[in-house]
Order: sequence, then structure tokens, then C-alpha cells
Amino acid sequence: MPHVPFSQFGQKLTARSGILALMDDLGRALTLQPDMRMLGGGNPAAVPEVQQLWRERMQTLLADGKAFDRMLVNYDPPQGNPHFIRALASLLQRTFGWNIREENLAITNGGQSAFFFLFNLLGGPTSDGRHKKILLPLSPEYIGYADQGLEADLFVACRPTITWPEGEARRRFKYAIDFAAVEQTLRTEPIAAIAVSRPTNPTGNVLTDDEVQKLSLLASQSGVPLILDNAYGAPFPNVIYTSATPHYAPHVILTLSLSKLGLPGTRTGIVIAAEPIASAISAMTAIAGLANGTIGQQIVLPLVESGEILDIGPRWLRPFYAEKRQAAETMTREIFTAAGVDWALHVSEGAFFHWLWLRGMSISTIELYERLKARKVLVVPGEYFFFGLPDEWPHSRECLRLNFAQPEHVMREALQIIAEEAANATK
Amino acid sequence: MPHVPFSQFGQKLTARSGILALMDDLGRALTLQPDMRMLGGGNPAAVPEVQQLWRERMQTLLADGKAFDRMLVNYDPPQGNPHFIRALASLLQRTFGWNIREENLAITNGGQSAFFFLFNLLGGPTSDGRHKKILLPLSPEYIGYADQGLEADLFVACRPTITWPEGEARRRFKYAIDFAAVEQTLRTEPIAAIAVSRPTNPTGNVLTDDEVQKLSLLASQSGVPLILDNAYGAPFPNVIYTSATPHYAPHVILTLSLSKLGLPGTRTGIVIAAEPIASAISAMTAIAGLANGTIGQQIVLPLVESGEILDIGPRWLRPFYAEKRQAAETMTREIFTAAGVDWALHVSEGAFFHWLWLRGMSISTIELYERLKARKVLVVPGEYFFFGLPDEWPHSRECLRLNFAQPEHVMREALQIIAEEAANATK
Repeated sequence: MPHVPFSQFGQKLTARSGILALMDDLGRALTLQPDMRMLGGGNPAAVPEVQQLWRERMQTLLADGKAFDRMLVNYDPPQGNPHFIRALASLLQRTFGWNIREENLAITNGGQSAFFFLFNLLGGPTSDGRHKKILLPLSPEYIGYADQGLEADLFVACRPTITWPEGEARRRFKYAIDFAAVEQTLRTEPIAAIAVSRPTNPTGNVLTDDEVQKLSLLASQSGVPLILDNAYGAPFPNVIYTSATPHYAPHVILTLSLSKLGLPGTRTGIVIAAEPIASAISAMTAIAGLANGTIGQQIVLPLVESGEILDIGPRWLRPFYAEKRQAAETMTREIFTAAGVDWALHVSEGAFFHWLWLRGMSISTIELYERLKARKVLVVPGEYFFFGLPDEWPHSRECLRLNFAQPEHVMREALQIIAEEAANATK
Repeated sequence: MPHVPFSQFGQKLTARSGILALMDDLGRALTLQPDMRMLGGGNPAAVPEVQQLWRERMQTLLADGKAFDRMLVNYDPPQGNPHFIRALASLLQRTFGWNIREENLAITNGGQSAFFFLFNLLGGPTSDGRHKKILLPLSPEYIGYADQGLEADLFVACRPTITWPEGEARRRFKYAIDFAAVEQTLRTEPIAAIAVSRPTNPTGNVLTDDEVQKLSLLASQSGVPLILDNAYGAPFPNVIYTSATPHYAPHVILTLSLSKLGLPGTRTGIVIAAEPIASAISAMTAIAGLANGTIGQQIVLPLVESGEILDIGPRWLRPFYAEKRQAAETMTREIFTAAGVDWALHVSEGAFFHWLWLRGMSISTIELYERLKARKVLVVPGEYFFFGLPDEWPHSRECLRLNFAQPEHVMREALQIIAEEAANATK
């Protein structure tokens, strides 16, 4: 056929995106390349006790044939399954004392869809001709946001300060929000919302309760929502190794997901927000997707009713990932020191990534990514996470995101290859 | 919190839409109001043999624990599951001789998402300042399209001619495409694509092979794609009571869905198109939703590999719905004639709706809808399906879409109530 021109939105949404390359490589390798060392995506690990839980739930649904049939053959309302919504509102009320009713909840086809809707609902062109932006108070931030704007330049990000909690010699660094920069940005840019992931994807940083309170206050004072992405966080899946109090207020928008509970194939995202926001998300689901997948909600429903869904993280996920995290850090220290590379790891307080800083690289990490892929190691180049920064930052070309939840021999082989290639690239 | 202003997109996508009201009423009634007579949505019927098929498939997946675990715990690539894509491309090649490779396919989270992506990929503002439109050659057309434009006025629709195949006294009418109007619109408007559902949702009209060939030629001559929505059509689910040849060409975009095979809860849509279009849809899935639900694809995979998926419609769905269709038509004839209402039904050639024309109504069908809902009968008012028409058309306020697949006593009670209310509203 002749060349079909795309609309402006089409061109924006189909430009080669970081998230597309990531998901494409990840998905192909998962399905077709069993020999690839998968330190790339955010695919959850197969945690045996949790997989057993979902198998048993599906067996229960099948044993009660009607429940299984209904789950497949019926459309839910765009807001989500009414029983699931009711159970979740009740759980949040009684556990945290939040003033949450059913009207404050909306389900989406995965957490990524929730952000596509939220960012474009709040940010972008307004009817009075402004172009409002989403403020990311701590860059690097989740790669999956980067291309979600229907129009260009949706994000403005703030560079964090780099701290060394145990001294630089220990090679463990931590980003901290530069609140002066955030306040400055709130004053000078037309901000629609503040958004942050907790734990931060990619670094595993967990904003302290104090940082969250400060952000919440700044948002409230500025009359904008604070969006907290809890895809790996509290109250579930709660893959957090420090203490972090879940935070909600009427101007806060929380998102949750079932993916890191081991259910990414069900595409189940959850938005908790003031009623006008939650009902806007339902409306966008109706128009863009008609309804949500029913299966994730049905699988976890009794665990939401009983509250047991809050225990899965602390009981099974956290110990599983904490052990992987420790083993990977020990290996990294050993292998990178031996290779004579100038490295550091961000302190890992949540999620299941190590954020590896390779100082003094002579090539970009996108180039390094290609070299590693050729050697059957899949990582995510750090550049993709630094979108929205007003100024060039050399640090942004020196980091890799590594999923540390792979089997030990895979981690060891992969880290060895990364160290070799990093040594070659810093000579 | 203070009032949070929405962006232009947000305002457009959250204006109270027909599809939201429809899905909301439908979903709530399905889950919470078992006494509602559900002639509203497009929810597929519970066809016992087909439900049995899906139960058995899930049991097989569970018995092979690894397959079940992989299905839940892994993200597919944004394009869709590689095994499913490969099997479907092969099935279409060998069954229809179409020149389809894996690169021509893309999965979406339901058919509705496919249209949200396609319409906004092709239509809307272009970089040279035009606002391109989607041409609907036969109005009424699917309610779910109506609000999908990211900007206003995405659609331009053509009024059909009304024919009486067996004479007006038989009260069976049929819309036919007014090709002169379509050609005129192609000349005068900036058209991005032609789009049509086959069978037509809401009417159950099935465009003849000749009409499809003519549309395809017009599209090709105009250098625009022809989008054929086969949600109820060929090659599956094939809920078609006449003969209809599936049509594909390099400038044609076909969409399919697993919903009317009884799997709407899995949200599985399929786009078949030239490679640039299919890969654009994958890119949009990655950005807006990260990945697709895996479960629908895994449930039907062996039936796609074997080709048996093509038999489900003719073997189980078609006889099931044909019997319902016949019974409902007989009841309608009896009940509406007795009520003294001036009625007619569109000939039902596919899908599972009757399109009821109530001539000389003194109220809108939106008002009638409310009166019926108060009497526990859910229908869809016809007004919603006539978007994009340049001129006012009184006929657009005289039709109802009725799902005829409900149990006999429900159909009888509902039709009786509709006839009573229609008689009241035409006095």
C-alpha cells in the first residue's frame, strides 16, 4: 500500500521508545531465548509459594464452575469489578484509617495504563492555551513514563543530590530529593502534578516518610496532586526492605498493581484518588478499552476480603528478594573490584533492581547495552531514566539497571561479563 | 482538595460518554442486579459447550503447572505472545491464502483499545495543520467509537438508504451503503481512513461481499486504509447467518477479538495490517499499557494452532444465537403488533442484536431508555450510534439496540414492557 501518514499523536506515540525496546527485548528473550541472562526488565521472579497460591485460587474458581465461567464471559463495569472495589475500599479503610470509599477507586489494564491516563488527564495542553507539566522531583525516574505524553515535553525533572551514607569508599550511594530545586520548579513551570515512584524504579531508593510528607505538603500548597507509584511498594506488594509508611490524603493519587505479586499477565492496575480523578480514570477506561481484565481481580479477591494480600510481600516476596539482593551485592563487590572498575551501587531499599554506577565510561550505556546483549546479557541502559532534566548531566550516561532476582549462576555470569565490558569501556 | 483542572484531552475523554453509561449500567447490573432484564450490552451469552471448552483448557494449563505459572508471571512483548502470533499468522495464511506474516499482527487489550489506537494513529491533527477524519460509510455505527477521538469531530458518517427486502408490510428493513454519499465525502473531507463493522454493530447488517469490494476499491483509490471491525465477524467468532467472505488486502486493516468467543474478561483484541500499522500498534501498546493480558491468548493457543478456533462459531455460536434470533423476532412480531405500535426490525444477518425501529415516537430513545430501566429492562438507545452525521435525521431518535440472546422468559417480559412503553410514547 502507499505510505500512510500518521497523525501528530501517532508520530509521538510510535517514535522508537525506550520502553518499547525494553519490553520487546525482554518479552522475546523470555519466550524465545532461554539462554539470555535476563537482568533487563521488571519481570517478577517465580516465587514458589506465591505461584502455588495463584494455582490454588484458579483451582477453586474452576471447582466452582459458575465463578470461573462468570469471570471469563462477563464484562465488568469500566471502574472495575464491584466486589473487588468494595473489598479493597474496606481493606484500606480498616487497615490505614483512610477516608476511602468505592468512589475513590478505579481499576486499569495494568499500572502503565493508569499513568498514561493520569499524566494526560492532568498534564498537556489546557483550554486556556498553557502546556502543563508533570514534575518529577527525583530523576532518574521510571522509563515507562518517558514517552507517555500525547504531546512533547510533558515532564520536568529535578536532579537529586548524591549522598554516601557510609562514606564513598564503601561504594554505596543514595540519591536525595533536592527540595530547593523542586520548589524552584514549582514556582517557574506550569505544573499539573508531582509524580514519584516509591520504591523508585530504577534505583530501589525508598523515599523516607519525611520526604513524602514534604512532597505532599508542597503539592498541597501548590494546589496540585501528588502521584505516588507504588508498583513495588506499600500497601502491596510491599517489596520494601526499610520501613515506609503508606501515605494518602485527598490530594494524593496512589497507584498499585498486581504485577509484582506475580500476576503481570493479568494486567491489573489500581488507582486510589479523590472521586473526580477516580471517575475520570473509569471514563478513560471505558472509551479507550471498554473494560478491564477480570481475572487478576478474581484471583486475589478473597485475599483482599481477608486482608491476607497484605501479608504476601512481608511473608514471601521480601525474604526471597532480600536474599537475592544480598547475594548480588556481594558478587558485585567481588567481581567489579577484581576487574578494577570504578563502580558504586545505589543502596537498595525496595524493588528488585540494582542501580550500578560505572564511573568514567568512555561509551554511553546504550552502546554498552548492545555489547552486553551480543554476549547474552540483557540490562537496561540508564540514559532512558533521565528524561525531563533541563541540563545535560554526565552521570546519566554512567548507570545500568540490573534485575538482581535471577538464579545465582546467571547473576554471576552476567556480572562477570558486565565487569569485563565495563573495564574495556573505561580503559 | 481544591478543584483539579483537566487537560484538553482529559476534558474530551471524560465528558459523559455513551459507552461509559452503557458499560456502567451493564456491568453493575451483571454483577449487582440479577433481576435486571439485560437487553443492553454486547455481553456474549453463556454458551455451555464453549464455556466447557475454556474450562478444559484452563484445567490443562493447570495440570501442566509450568504453563500456568508462565502465563501469569511473565510479560509478553508488546506485540503479543510470539507463539500465539506465529500460530495465527500461519492459520490465516493457510486458510485464506493471505500474505500475512508475524509482522502483520499486533495484539491489544481488547478490540476497543485497537480502535482507540488506530483512530488516533491515523486521524486527528497532522503535522501540516490539517484535521483528518475517519469516514464511516454506513451510520448507525458502533457506539464505542463515538468518543474515541483525542480531539473533537474525528468522524464523518454517511446516512444509508433504507430498503425493504420483502416489502414494507413485512416490517423488515435493511440499510444499504449510499456509495454516492461516500464518494462525495471522500472528495470533500480530509479522510484518514474508512471504517466499518461487519456485522454492523448495532444493526446486525452484514455488508455484502460486493459492498466490501467496492469500499476496498474506493479506499485503495483514495490512498487510505479500510478498517474492517470483525468483532462479531469472520474468520472468528463468525456469528454470521448469511455468507460473508473475509477480505484482506495490503491497505486493509482487520480487527478481531476473543470477546464474542466467550472471553471478554481476558481483553484480547487482534489487529491484522500492513507492517507499519501493526508495528505502530505494538508501540502504542508498549507506551500506553506496557504489555497485553496473556491469558486469552494462552487459552485459545492450541485451537489456533489446530485451526479449530474457526469451527467454534459455525458449530456452537451460530446455531445458539440463530435460535435466539428467530424466537425473539417471532415474539417481537406478536407483541408489537398486539400493542399497536408502528415497528420494524433490521434484518439480522450477524451478531446478536435486534435493531428495533419505533416509528413516530414522541420522546427520544434516551428518555425511553430511562423509563425502561425503571421497569428493570436495560436496552441501548439508538441516538448514540448516529455520531458523525452532518445533518439532523429524525430516524436517529427512533431506534433501540436489543441483545436478543437472553433467556426466553426474559425476552418475552422485556419485549412486552418495551412495547407498552413504546405505545405510551407514540400516543
